[in-house]
Amino acid sequence: MLVVMQRDATQAQIDNVCAAIRAMGFEPVPMPGAQRTAVGLVGNDRQVDGAHISVMAGVAQVIYVSSPFKQVSREWRQENTVVSIGPGVSFGGSEIPIIAGPCSVETEQQIVTAARAVRAAGATALRGGAFKPRSSPYSFQGLGKKGLVLLALARRETGLPIVTEAMDDEGAHLIAEYGDCIQVGARNMQNYSLLKTLGRLGKPVLLKRGLAATISDLLLSAEYILAEGNDQVILCERGVRSFDPSSRNMFDLNAIPTVHKLSHLPIIADPSHGTGVRDHVTPMARAALAAGADGILVEVHPSPDRALSDGAQSLYPEQFSRLVSELRAIAEAIGRRVAPSPGTAPLSVG
Amino acid sequence: MLVVMQRDATQAQIDNVCAAIRAMGFEPVPMPGAQRTAVGLVGNDRQVDGAHISVMAGVAQVIYVSSPFKQVSREWRQENTVVSIGPGVSFGGSEIPIIAGPCSVETEQQIVTAARAVRAAGATALRGGAFKPRSSPYSFQGLGKKGLVLLALARRETGLPIVTEAMDDEGAHLIAEYGDCIQVGARNMQNYSLLKTLGRLGKPVLLKRGLAATISDLLLSAEYILAEGNDQVILCERGVRSFDPSSRNMFDLNAIPTVHKLSHLPIIADPSHGTGVRDHVTPMARAALAAGADGILVEVHPSPDRALSDGAQSLYPEQFSRLVSELRAIAEAIGRRVAPSPGTAPLSVG
Amino acid sequence: MLVVMQRDATQAQIDNVCAAIRAMGFEPVPMPGAQRTAVGLVGNDRQVDGAHISVMAGVAQVIYVSSPFKQVSREWRQENTVVSIGPGVSFGGSEIPIIAGPCSVETEQQIVTAARAVRAAGATALRGGAFKPRSSPYSFQGLGKKGLVLLALARRETGLPIVTEAMDDEGAHLIAEYGDCIQVGARNMQNYSLLKTLGRLGKPVLLKRGLAATISDLLLSAEYILAEGNDQVILCERGVRSFDPSSRNMFDLNAIPTVHKLSHLPIIADPSHGTGVRDHVTPMARAALAAGADGILVEVHPSPDRALSDGAQSLYPEQFSRLVSELRAIAEAIGRRVAPSPGTAPLSVG
Amino acid sequence: MLVVMQRDATQAQIDNVCAAIRAMGFEPVPMPGAQRTAVGLVGNDRQVDGAHISVMAGVAQVIYVSSPFKQVSREWRQENTVVSIGPGVSFGGSEIPIIAGPCSVETEQQIVTAARAVRAAGATALRGGAFKPRSSPYSFQGLGKKGLVLLALARRETGLPIVTEAMDDEGAHLIAEYGDCIQVGARNMQNYSLLKTLGRLGKPVLLKRGLAATISDLLLSAEYILAEGNDQVILCERGVRSFDPSSRNMFDLNAIPTVHKLSHLPIIADPSHGTGVRDHVTPMARAALAAGADGILVEVHPSPDRALSDGAQSLYPEQFSRLVSELRAIAEAIGRRVAPSPGTAPLSVG
Repeated sequence: MLVVMQRDATQAQIDNVCAAIRAMGFEPVPMPGAQRTAVGLVGNDRQVDGAHISVMAGVAQVIYVSSPFKQVSREWRQENTVVSIGPGVSFGGSEIPIIAGPCSVETEQQIVTAARAVRAAGATALRGGAFKPRSSPYSFQGLGKKGLVLLALARRETGLPIVTEAMDDEGAHLIAEYGDCIQVGARNMQNYSLLKTLGRLGKPVLLKRGLAATISDLLLSAEYILAEGNDQVILCERGVRSFDPSSRNMFDLNAIPTVHKLSHLPIIADPSHGTGVRDHVTPMARAALAAGADGILVEVHPSPDRALSDGAQSLYPEQFSRLVSELRAIAEAIGRRVAPSPGTAPLSVG
Repeated sequence: MLVVMQRDATQAQIDNVCAAIRAMGFEPVPMPGAQRTAVGLVGNDRQVDGAHISVMAGVAQVIYVSSPFKQVSREWRQENTVVSIGPGVSFGGSEIPIIAGPCSVETEQQIVTAARAVRAAGATALRGGAFKPRSSPYSFQGLGKKGLVLLALARRETGLPIVTEAMDDEGAHLIAEYGDCIQVGARNMQNYSLLKTLGRLGKPVLLKRGLAATISDLLLSAEYILAEGNDQVILCERGVRSFDPSSRNMFDLNAIPTVHKLSHLPIIADPSHGTGVRDHVTPMARAALAAGADGILVEVHPSPDRALSDGAQSLYPEQFSRLVSELRAIAEAIGRRVAPSPGTAPLSVG
Repeated sequence: MLVVMQRDATQAQIDNVCAAIRAMGFEPVPMPGAQRTAVGLVGNDRQVDGAHISVMAGVAQVIYVSSPFKQVSREWRQENTVVSIGPGVSFGGSEIPIIAGPCSVETEQQIVTAARAVRAAGATALRGGAFKPRSSPYSFQGLGKKGLVLLALARRETGLPIVTEAMDDEGAHLIAEYGDCIQVGARNMQNYSLLKTLGRLGKPVLLKRGLAATISDLLLSAEYILAEGNDQVILCERGVRSFDPSSRNMFDLNAIPTVHKLSHLPIIADPSHGTGVRDHVTPMARAALAAGADGILVEVHPSPDRALSDGAQSLYPEQFSRLVSELRAIAEAIGRRVAPSPGTAPLSVG
Repeated sequence: MLVVMQRDATQAQIDNVCAAIRAMGFEPVPMPGAQRTAVGLVGNDRQVDGAHISVMAGVAQVIYVSSPFKQVSREWRQENTVVSIGPGVSFGGSEIPIIAGPCSVETEQQIVTAARAVRAAGATALRGGAFKPRSSPYSFQGLGKKGLVLLALARRETGLPIVTEAMDDEGAHLIAEYGDCIQVGARNMQNYSLLKTLGRLGKPVLLKRGLAATISDLLLSAEYILAEGNDQVILCERGVRSFDPSSRNMFDLNAIPTVHKLSHLPIIADPSHGTGVRDHVTPMARAALAAGADGILVEVHPSPDRALSDGAQSLYPEQFSRLVSELRAIAEAIGRRVAPSPGTAPLSVG
């Protein structure tokens, strides 16, 4: 922490700041400059809150030097964390898994058809919502536990591990039983009660960035999970709020290299929510992969026109199939590889 | 709903859109124009989701005519809803209550001292956090249930009703027992599980606007509570995220007349979080009241420099006392009145 | 400037940073901490650009201690700058002038009628656009020089000084001849060529905040004018871009106390553009005044329904008249006074 | 235009709206619905401003059906516009030119060295600033006309066409004489006087998106240029303002498919300003190309550590060389091709 004094701060004001730092248990280091004095604080300042110093007489600004997060940081752990959600399905290594499926689980036929279609096209895991956070209480809210049973059935049929969203503790415990990776949606990114529960459950977590979350906020939310002993966290960029109504969200792909620099956790991208429009999903999925994403999450529906939610941003199965081909070519261009569907033998040797 | 066709849309494309509207159970009304055709939908379109139509061939745009919220709207109920959280403490009428107190409950002495100080200065209700949502898992997280017991004690000492925040179902039930009004923080504004619980509990709710919530989002979250049968909801503007680091949040006071136009629910303002800086709390509290706020929520701490959280934005008791005087003068200038502390007899009759 | 090293930075990396600081002509001061080392720079760092140091090996972050602006800062000049645009019409003192008038000058009758109406209601100065920056090239672009002639005529009729917008050098020179205060619109806030011209012209300038300008950006743009020798600058908050479509702009009234803390220049508020809706102009003008604004700029049109631009946000003359009464009452409540129309004798003593 | 009435609007209010539409010269079409009536307007509504109707009694909302721009729209011209800035250097076709060079022209040696280095690495055009818009008046402002002379010299040495920024009319005329493509910077995107001048000059224009410009704003600014008869406009995404301080700007790559859908004009991307950090330029340049960009604009400096501006975001020549190789591989993966340097014979036949 560095306390910057005003240009005309008196010596008494500087002394008061030094005293306040000592009262916090640290050693102050005054640094007189040509224009003004700054007072440094020596010692571990991870948890120091200097807000009350910022409003002391003669103080211009308090600057924090340490980052507020700890276990999620690249400084804490140099090598990438690899998160596995099923046999052969890992995020954070050189292979790039693709999670695909409908927004919501609707019927047995719908989810099994979708699972087969995305597997045939090259998906590595299956997504599908049983608990749906909808802006309006009058919109379809998901099938609940029945949806989880249908997802487990689709996994049995295809071998694809299941990624699905929890909205509260009860849902999280159910998904820990039926699914393979528990998603936290954008709206719950700072639901700290839920994050603590997920930290204790120990299952892999897919943590989506909130609509107005900075990268630092996202990492601090992940820190809640790691602080409880669970480091199996996959981050996800899915677009943030912006001033431009020309698209549903602003898809911040620069979050990918930013997270890679600050943290050892893998980060994937969701171009379906990131853009909100089917025609933009393909170019932006390609862009996400080129930017270095550790995975792609994409909505695919057997009949988008009849989807109960998010139909307009869901790909048709044949569009998804073409997308996977393009992603494979781009991955190769940057020295990575799209992960194969589980159970396939991509590198069979004669 | 109105479907705007592209300038060069073919008759077949227009016919397809009409068919899709009929398949949804409504009657299409094509409106040919000089440049392009639009197709209207006749019937109650409250819950219509036209997203799949928006991506049909020849469609330029789908426009929603009805607002997505219902019971919270001014059209649903013309007169203001008045929410009472204690004898003589009501939001939404001509009187303007002031809720004041520390960010967190810390000790018995701290909260009782604070309660007496804010009551003496003219506060109408007491705030204080027992469950604290903090960005970092390593920051002080509140006293929990013990904090609620201390708040109830402070109420007994002063008569001030208690407003305090719930972060999950368990906390909500505890506050329903010990407190008078359950606050939902900005980070949980779209925690729909919690909102539904609050709808069923029936206690007054103080719903804070999320950091990137539009006014429409805020009203839809309130709709979750009303849809469960509880209309005792007070909305709260507390600043939103912006691009400008010069202040912690951007305090959107224009939200006040906007909500008053769209909804019958009362809206109050929190200049402490809205600005994040003690020196700005007084001018912005005055501004909020002048903009038409139905209440003011302000952080006051007996010793801000020693507060465990939010010290930098907390007023000293004597600052708060001066603020109340200024608020009384401004209220009078616009034909309203600051509500007196409960139990005082402000209009003694000879 | 403070260079924060990474936790695992080597001594060689720290030495390199010290060498780079020396190469810039300053003295480095290494500060070893428990977690990491920071290197301070001693000397006047106003114009130091440490961006190339921020990407050196082992560097985590470069932090600037001095603010980037100079002559506009409160540190440079303690007392308020008072800007006068006509006899008895000053911004930055205890009196609060009100600038009112139509968005555009349309005809002689319209502007003279408007000028008389706003003067009768209590306005202190007249606004009206001759050069109009419109998003679309097909919208009404203003009367140009003829508009200036009509404004000068309206001034002769009413005594109200004229505030009007320049979009380029040619317009600025014309306004310097015909008007009293040259407005720079939000879209031109960083048109540095124009700002330099205005600095040299020496006329009072009304500088509006850009749509995505931070307070620091706004002050730096003002610095361009002061750097050329003209300190007669009035700043203006007029709303910024936000994610919320519920209103045309987000009106950031907290900018007022923020500017008052950082700068000696006066700041006024424009609730017409700040909200974009007539019904919100009155409550938000009151709020701006209560927040400490040094003036109010408001659109008033004799017949808003027939205005060539901004009709929806223009007040009717009788609404404006009521607004002035409310503003007078609020000003009194906070110990200030709405400035009278020039030439009136508001405090005549018998 | 569609006027949506309130649920409880009276027949008299509906009639008034119809009368107001007729007064504007159009035919009203009332559409009674189950909940409320909407009134359509038949006829060409491109330039209709219904703001005054939006505040009439009984009106809930006015909705615009036509887009506000005209000549720039894909509806106006179906096929892509191809903009050529030199022999063999075209934007908008299947080839993707790369514009590279330093932020500012500093010396003859610097710009010629830079030009040779970027040409050797595969650049198609040269960038370099002679007129620099800097936030602070005390920062380096560019060499002015002398810089243009040096750029012309670098072109003679390398054959690379010149892209450089104009800040005002005078600069624009000079660049028309010395350069090949006139850049409009983000801060001047809505400097309509400058845009009109560029429309009349007829030289190719590179129009950068403003810091808070919506896609619609960007297209409307381009419309100013086309409206004067010049359709040689290249749009450029370069990042917008956001709430997240983790990066200098938010790089909105989804702007690329959005522009491609709405307009026939080419759009390129500038990852140097889009990210502000050297390490992010390479992944985000790759991402931009994968998203469909029609060109890449990137800052390269022979010695970034000694650059007078933007050193921290400039690539070293060897980094740029590797980037070009990666871009070539990704272009191939999506069926396009990076344009060769002018004068090279990319398809040599044996």
